[in-house]
Amino acid sequence: MSEPPVSGGLGDGTVRWRLRLAYNGAGFHGFAAQEGQPTVGGALAEALGRITRTEVSLTCAGRTDSGVHALDQVVHVDLPAEVAATLDPSAVIKSCNSQLGPAIVVREAGVAPEGFDARRSAKARRYRYLVVDAPVADPLLSGLAWHVAGPLDLRSMTAAADALLGEHDFRAFCRRVPGSTPDDPIPRRVLDARWSRLSDPDRDDWPGPALAPAVGDLLAFEIEANAFCHQMVRSLVGTLVDVGRGRKRPSDILWILRSADRQQAGQPAPPHGLTLTAVGYED
Amino acid sequence: MSEPPVSGGLGDGTVRWRLRLAYNGAGFHGFAAQEGQPTVGGALAEALGRITRTEVSLTCAGRTDSGVHALDQVVHVDLPAEVAATLDPSAVIKSCNSQLGPAIVVREAGVAPEGFDARRSAKARRYRYLVVDAPVADPLLSGLAWHVAGPLDLRSMTAAADALLGEHDFRAFCRRVPGSTPDDPIPRRVLDARWSRLSDPDRDDWPGPALAPAVGDLLAFEIEANAFCHQMVRSLVGTLVDVGRGRKRPSDILWILRSADRQQAGQPAPPHGLTLTAVGYED
Repeated sequence: MSEPPVSGGLGDGTVRWRLRLAYNGAGFHGFAAQEGQPTVGGALAEALGRITRTEVSLTCAGRTDSGVHALDQVVHVDLPAEVAATLDPSAVIKSCNSQLGPAIVVREAGVAPEGFDARRSAKARRYRYLVVDAPVADPLLSGLAWHVAGPLDLRSMTAAADALLGEHDFRAFCRRVPGSTPDDPIPRRVLDARWSRLSDPDRDDWPGPALAPAVGDLLAFEIEANAFCHQMVRSLVGTLVDVGRGRKRPSDILWILRSADRQQAGQPAPPHGLTLTAVGYED
Repeated sequence: MSEPPVSGGLGDGTVRWRLRLAYNGAGFHGFAAQEGQPTVGGALAEALGRITRTEVSLTCAGRTDSGVHALDQVVHVDLPAEVAATLDPSAVIKSCNSQLGPAIVVREAGVAPEGFDARRSAKARRYRYLVVDAPVADPLLSGLAWHVAGPLDLRSMTAAADALLGEHDFRAFCRRVPGSTPDDPIPRRVLDARWSRLSDPDRDDWPGPALAPAVGDLLAFEIEANAFCHQMVRSLVGTLVDVGRGRKRPSDILWILRSADRQQAGQPAPPHGLTLTAVGYED
């Protein structure tokens, strides 16, 4: 007589769980666990290890770099079936959040749908990058937005962002992966890339927007692609901000892409302005 | 032969300057200078002292408590006329901000209009209080918003806020000033008091608002009054959130005001959700 199949069972005696998390990347050396460094994945694996009394290994949808935030990161973890059978999702969420909050927050947890893989099943990732282009930095948004003195030309940045749409070789905007050669193309398909400006709050026009920046204009860059290579969003933002400053032209973007030369792109924007906002899966 | 009057001169050999600042209150023991404690006013006075090589004393429009932020605090400082004559406003701003930024930022500085007093000339102060009412805390807004688990009833909180409008004795919502007696009324005129909800970002509805909260709903309470007494906004928010949780009724607000009894009000909300957003002056 065989046991009935466990929901989410992988046929190897383990059950796959899926978790959705948000985190503030300040104070973490990125997502991926690293010996002796505080990382988001390391902290979450430790918390889950305490709950399940097993050693757990996490797979995430999009590895975020040191200092980068997430509103909605997705991870999976394979747990021994006999351990998974004892777990209550809401108790797991509660225990994780009391161990990790408020810097890391588990929003959802439970048995993954059949065939789910946090990384391989993901069809798209979406990132947001915030920029304050005011004469002075913003004390309330200093952990979430990059301060660039002087106004940026939104129109030329929008034109430059348009040039990113579609499939391109993004070598010029990526940190090379160890082991790869400069001749390996890095094709990525950009599905959306846009800048928007939250208008300067007029101090006399009470009440202003609830989250209006303190000291000037706030710009958001949002980009969605099937996948991203290492430092791609930050390199793109650095280059697009050069366009907004008038140091590069919108038409330079296609030329930089075609050059496949990292020296032609702008300096990567700092990590604290970047947030992984969503991961898209089929259905 | 008499010297021509110095612009902004006070007739006592000093010239009054006005400054507008924004600051992140985390890490400061409030505005007012205190021996041996990091304060916003102490840090600004030190920076101005280095620039002017004099000892300066600041007067602000609204003293903020430990941990409370400001988007637009207004201060004045009286400088010896011979020192003031050597100062360039943009150089003062630049020097202050390189000494104090990004936690404290001087937005404007210069000779004050005739008869200006940052505190006495102010006709109104406006504060904002942010609340996240989601099951879990928000990692990106954890320094700016109070996390209250579970949904709050915006309609009853709005009804309760309406009861604050007009002139009332706010003793029940104030920390008593040393030296005052419990019988001294504390009349304040509330000009505006309202809650608004930024809707829960639908994760599929890309792109969401650029500053959408990470993990759920965000509420803003905005209140404007001729003046505020100590801990008034935080006591009001604590009480209004009790109404939103169903622990108090909207009609209790008038009853608490009339009781003039601090024991009847809710616990003060924590300081990190509070921001002085504006100070109103005549003209």
